Amino acid sequence: MSFQRSNGRAHDALRPLRITRGFTRHAEGSVLIEFGDTRVLCTASVEERVPPHKKGSGEGWVTAEYGMLPRSTHTRSDREAARGKQSGRTQEIQRLIGRSLRAVFDLKLLGERTITLDCDVLQADGGTRTAAITGAYVAAQDAVSVLLAQGKIAVSPVLDSVAAVSVGIVEGTPLLDLEYTEDSGCDTDMNVVMTGRGGFVEVQGTAEGVAFSRAEMDALLALATQGIQQLTAAQTAALARPLSA
Amino acid sequence: MSFQRSNGRAHDALRPLRITRGFTRHAEGSVLIEFGDTRVLCTASVEERVPPHKKGSGEGWVTAEYGMLPRSTHTRSDREAARGKQSGRTQEIQRLIGRSLRAVFDLKLLGERTITLDCDVLQADGGTRTAAITGAYVAAQDAVSVLLAQGKIAVSPVLDSVAAVSVGIVEGTPLLDLEYTEDSGCDTDMNVVMTGRGGFVEVQGTAEGVAFSRAEMDALLALATQGIQQLTAAQTAALARPLSA
Amino acid sequence: MSFQRSNGRAHDALRPLRITRGFTRHAEGSVLIEFGDTRVLCTASVEERVPPHKKGSGEGWVTAEYGMLPRSTHTRSDREAARGKQSGRTQEIQRLIGRSLRAVFDLKLLGERTITLDCDVLQADGGTRTAAITGAYVAAQDAVSVLLAQGKIAVSPVLDSVAAVSVGIVEGTPLLDLEYTEDSGCDTDMNVVMTGRGGFVEVQGTAEGVAFSRAEMDALLALATQGIQQLTAAQTAALARPLSA
Amino acid sequence: MSFQRSNGRAHDALRPLRITRGFTRHAEGSVLIEFGDTRVLCTASVEERVPPHKKGSGEGWVTAEYGMLPRSTHTRSDREAARGKQSGRTQEIQRLIGRSLRAVFDLKLLGERTITLDCDVLQADGGTRTAAITGAYVAAQDAVSVLLAQGKIAVSPVLDSVAAVSVGIVEGTPLLDLEYTEDSGCDTDMNVVMTGRGGFVEVQGTAEGVAFSRAEMDALLALATQGIQQLTAAQTAALARPLSA
Amino acid sequence: MSFQRSNGRAHDALRPLRITRGFTRHAEGSVLIEFGDTRVLCTASVEERVPPHKKGSGEGWVTAEYGMLPRSTHTRSDREAARGKQSGRTQEIQRLIGRSLRAVFDLKLLGERTITLDCDVLQADGGTRTAAITGAYVAAQDAVSVLLAQGKIAVSPVLDSVAAVSVGIVEGTPLLDLEYTEDSGCDTDMNVVMTGRGGFVEVQGTAEGVAFSRAEMDALLALATQGIQQLTAAQTAALARPLSA
Amino acid sequence: MSFQRSNGRAHDALRPLRITRGFTRHAEGSVLIEFGDTRVLCTASVEERVPPHKKGSGEGWVTAEYGMLPRSTHTRSDREAARGKQSGRTQEIQRLIGRSLRAVFDLKLLGERTITLDCDVLQADGGTRTAAITGAYVAAQDAVSVLLAQGKIAVSPVLDSVAAVSVGIVEGTPLLDLEYTEDSGCDTDMNVVMTGRGGFVEVQGTAEGVAFSRAEMDALLALATQGIQQLTAAQTAALARPLSA
Repeated sequence: MSFQRSNGRAHDALRPLRITRGFTRHAEGSVLIEFGDTRVLCTASVEERVPPHKKGSGEGWVTAEYGMLPRSTHTRSDREAARGKQSGRTQEIQRLIGRSLRAVFDLKLLGERTITLDCDVLQADGGTRTAAITGAYVAAQDAVSVLLAQGKIAVSPVLDSVAAVSVGIVEGTPLLDLEYTEDSGCDTDMNVVMTGRGGFVEVQGTAEGVAFSRAEMDALLALATQGIQQLTAAQTAALARPLSA
Repeated sequence: MSFQRSNGRAHDALRPLRITRGFTRHAEGSVLIEFGDTRVLCTASVEERVPPHKKGSGEGWVTAEYGMLPRSTHTRSDREAARGKQSGRTQEIQRLIGRSLRAVFDLKLLGERTITLDCDVLQADGGTRTAAITGAYVAAQDAVSVLLAQGKIAVSPVLDSVAAVSVGIVEGTPLLDLEYTEDSGCDTDMNVVMTGRGGFVEVQGTAEGVAFSRAEMDALLALATQGIQQLTAAQTAALARPLSA
Repeated sequence: MSFQRSNGRAHDALRPLRITRGFTRHAEGSVLIEFGDTRVLCTASVEERVPPHKKGSGEGWVTAEYGMLPRSTHTRSDREAARGKQSGRTQEIQRLIGRSLRAVFDLKLLGERTITLDCDVLQADGGTRTAAITGAYVAAQDAVSVLLAQGKIAVSPVLDSVAAVSVGIVEGTPLLDLEYTEDSGCDTDMNVVMTGRGGFVEVQGTAEGVAFSRAEMDALLALATQGIQQLTAAQTAALARPLSA
Repeated sequence: MSFQRSNGRAHDALRPLRITRGFTRHAEGSVLIEFGDTRVLCTASVEERVPPHKKGSGEGWVTAEYGMLPRSTHTRSDREAARGKQSGRTQEIQRLIGRSLRAVFDLKLLGERTITLDCDVLQADGGTRTAAITGAYVAAQDAVSVLLAQGKIAVSPVLDSVAAVSVGIVEGTPLLDLEYTEDSGCDTDMNVVMTGRGGFVEVQGTAEGVAFSRAEMDALLALATQGIQQLTAAQTAALARPLSA
Repeated sequence: MSFQRSNGRAHDALRPLRITRGFTRHAEGSVLIEFGDTRVLCTASVEERVPPHKKGSGEGWVTAEYGMLPRSTHTRSDREAARGKQSGRTQEIQRLIGRSLRAVFDLKLLGERTITLDCDVLQADGGTRTAAITGAYVAAQDAVSVLLAQGKIAVSPVLDSVAAVSVGIVEGTPLLDLEYTEDSGCDTDMNVVMTGRGGFVEVQGTAEGVAFSRAEMDALLALATQGIQQLTAAQTAALARPLSA
Repeated sequence: MSFQRSNGRAHDALRPLRITRGFTRHAEGSVLIEFGDTRVLCTASVEERVPPHKKGSGEGWVTAEYGMLPRSTHTRSDREAARGKQSGRTQEIQRLIGRSLRAVFDLKLLGERTITLDCDVLQADGGTRTAAITGAYVAAQDAVSVLLAQGKIAVSPVLDSVAAVSVGIVEGTPLLDLEYTEDSGCDTDMNVVMTGRGGFVEVQGTAEGVAFSRAEMDALLALATQGIQQLTAAQTAALARPLSA
């Protein structure tokens, strides 16, 4: 195990994690999540309507949108609104966030309404999609609390928690929670989404250079599993704190 | 003077103003500006290229882009990147910001490079465009300091400071620095952009209901002038503080 | 006062003004307005439907669209329909025309119908937006006359007239009604929209080069006020003439 | 022959035809052509560049764009620039105009430059595409005269004249130069483009209802041929008149 | 008559023609049509809804869409879905296919439903639009048979057959059913659409180089007429064969 | 193991597999691949240019585009070219195909040229993306053979083979190579891309309903591994057959 991480971080350690609830005031849930230098603002908005494919079904919908501020990155990227379309990467990520959140929602219990998770990256340093999923869960919980408090729903539709982390192999070393320089230099990159009870929701592994072996995959899944346990604990702790207006 | 403002604010008082430099780390200038509950992240990005109409001119370019996070507002708005185009309002605002900043720049002294001011509204409560201009100036100054420190330019191309504020008439009372509820209820709404030396850069007055008189216009311009003096002082103070990395 | 205008025009003189009603036959109102060499075709179309935000409100809507024929200008510009989007400038202008006309309309008296003002520039020589507003008012009046004649409305929803003119400072001289060469060389450029009774509807002043002083602004507003009085008189005279089919 | 045309027009008569050169001043050629109530503004713009497929070929290019003002028609149509795309009909027409004009141009003699014919319909009453072709030829000739006068070309690249007319069968009667009500009620509709020397450039016949016979086609082609002879004569006469600045 | 065709084909001979019904399984009609090396997959899809302009009319609609796979051509063309818009040529062709099919349909007998003909070119060697029309008719017939078998309609809405072929003059020789190399080198190119009973539905002739004479046009129409008789016979024979699931 | 598959297929059996090389003639590689009723046409096009990020690098590029014919599916889907944009799903799939192929290419050995894999679904019954990857590899090999034969490259840049298969858990039973009805009813769905030597290139597992366990994941990976061994053998066999022109 030879690769040296910045700040002397252990290969199996998460970056400093910070979850700030109530970061902005209009949204039903608003969470700033920080995985080290990666900072994502996740808001949960409740709207009393559903997309066409859910109309009249008695079920609700949970969906996500993702964006990066143009200068959240090392060099400025084009503003997608100005270019007139979202990149394939953006669409891929927002579909992943949406599926991950829906995996822990009972859409019947939600009723015919939509929760939209907007995940906007204020500062990027690797792992924006996993931070987004982890923060979006907390924002979604706060939005559900609002619905419960308003008496719009009687029972929470949230069945479990969900969190995500990236893992990868850099110069032969399996690492947890990759930062940007690790991510761009890695051979294999995997994003893992798991529930609080330990089930897998999504596993997306990609060989950037050479193909990876089954043994490497097992090592990465083990790293991810323990990382997500820590993220789950942090989500629980954050939600246990009072939310000051 | 009968209209009562929230928090007992005087008709000629600005909202609490906060300017945080170095809010994010990648941009050459990064400023979070807060006019009360309005919060705009202004980043200044330097790129060593110019748009086609400036190529080979020896001059640089200063431009701006503006966006609102979908849930920066009371109810969620569509994400412009998802809709595939920027609204007329967005384009109008980003053109205004760009013109305002160019008014205090000597593009020859900047050299053939571009400074892009990205103004993204994290939370909206009226006055987002005036906050954006006021914050963008500070971010632009920080970007210029980077260029000077790198030796890329020898002399600052910044000729003066620039700041902006909204004024309006609500129920017959001229008010400085409108918040959202005041703005949506006002008869006349004016955005004023001025330099530190007191010259006008932009004056945009609109009668929302009945047309306004010359006397009303004079009252509004006077209010704006003194508001901008305070904003200018705050910009100067913010820039005088050390910028911690 | 040193700047010499073309054709010996006085600094406070409008260009030759011509208003031709009934220029085309299908529209409820159709006006060709000429400010010197600037020629704009303004049609007013009545449709018995309103946009979503007015549905069921009992109120009508007045809106505008603006375009330039590709070769209305000195060099050919791209056709916006071919490029697939309207420029920021186009959107800014059509929003301005719409607001200006709505300022003199009682939307309740109009009833749930829409008047669309299409302002298409056939030939451009500066001041296309101010000509468009001035001509659109006449076209709108003709459309209202049709509605009254058809018995669709009993009382005119038009509360006042509206007209617009540009003013600017060129080489230190304040000028009324800028033509293209004056406009492109001017230091300060202001578009003023006023009602027939003398109230301000819009004031949009922009420093192209150095910022302008309060005294300069006062001079420009005075020039604009007298120019608009002449435009108002011309609108009244044009509307007093019989409209031949 | 039973169908009665408006204004007692004979089945083989053109509508009153008017060709006004120099209608606007910036374009190298600017022609307002009127086929009865159909009025199309055709401008010819010369640009000293060619599209990519002609670069370095030593040949020029002739192309066309077509548009209808939103209220040129009986009921207002959407503005294509606002909708963000040109309709299939618009594209079909502008491709037809371009091909028709190129048929009488020697692109080598034109040299590496482009003539763009912008055909904008101010008022529509059937036959806008045929009026556009007929008017565009006159505008193109005026643009070529400018190039000759400027000494940019020594020999005219125009090999022949080109004009177009519509013919159709309405209630069994073959008619020349259909106006809108005839066009919308006709069984067969044909647009014919011919050179001054009598060659066919385009023949586009469409059965709107029942298929048409060879005999009907022959009758329509004969009508079109004599109509185009008259249009050719009118083009020649118009070009023989002096063009007042 | 000097031009030598590939494979010793006579100037008035069609290329080998093959019509394969049931080429794919989901569509109500699915036909692979081959005109020599040109291969077009034509599917007919029935949907129980009509476009807005037919709603409540009691009538159905028949429409078409056309596309070329990016590498159906000699060199790869852009994928229109990726570019974000269909070319003018594509729109022109799909409008032609739609009109041609509607010419043989009684939309009242079809009832309020839509048949969409998707014509996708798998391999192109000239004549893709004429192959598409010829194949689409067969697919439409199969879709109508499904509707009859399902008892959704009692009487076939198909009034006649329809087929299409290209003709052109290459080096002075009139040729039937042009392949790509002939098409790109020809002086005059004509697409002819006819019904089984011999009526003309569309005639679209274009002079690519010099204008064509009436005599040339007559020769082309005669060639096309006999070619379409053979295509009609082939359509009839193909539809007479059993359609294996 | 209780779920009964159609046609008595074993839970660990692939569907009938067919690979037809040289399916169309213009592309350097053209393969029709069939996984049961799923049929995808994969063409490989060689172009002597690279995208901007590879210019001057000495390296080539391998990329993919994916599309479904509108009626390849049970009910007709919108044509993406007509809608004006590719769906998120389409972009996700074409990015996956591109990454998978690049994983077995040495871009340096390819030289500065691009191979584009167009994967167009003619008929869909589940597994279109895995069929596309498996077929695209064969098409890419044929394109490389052309480059070798032309002497444009001296050594093959293909380092290994690549193939893909879907696996999933339906009613508790792990299944190999899901067809449409299995796919839409499954709890967990995983797409696995592997090289011929047995390394993983991509693993994308998604819980459609309840999260999946590590044991389930292991079972799925084992099924996929043996499925891909069969696909690899079939690719090898197909490439060993002579390619008839």
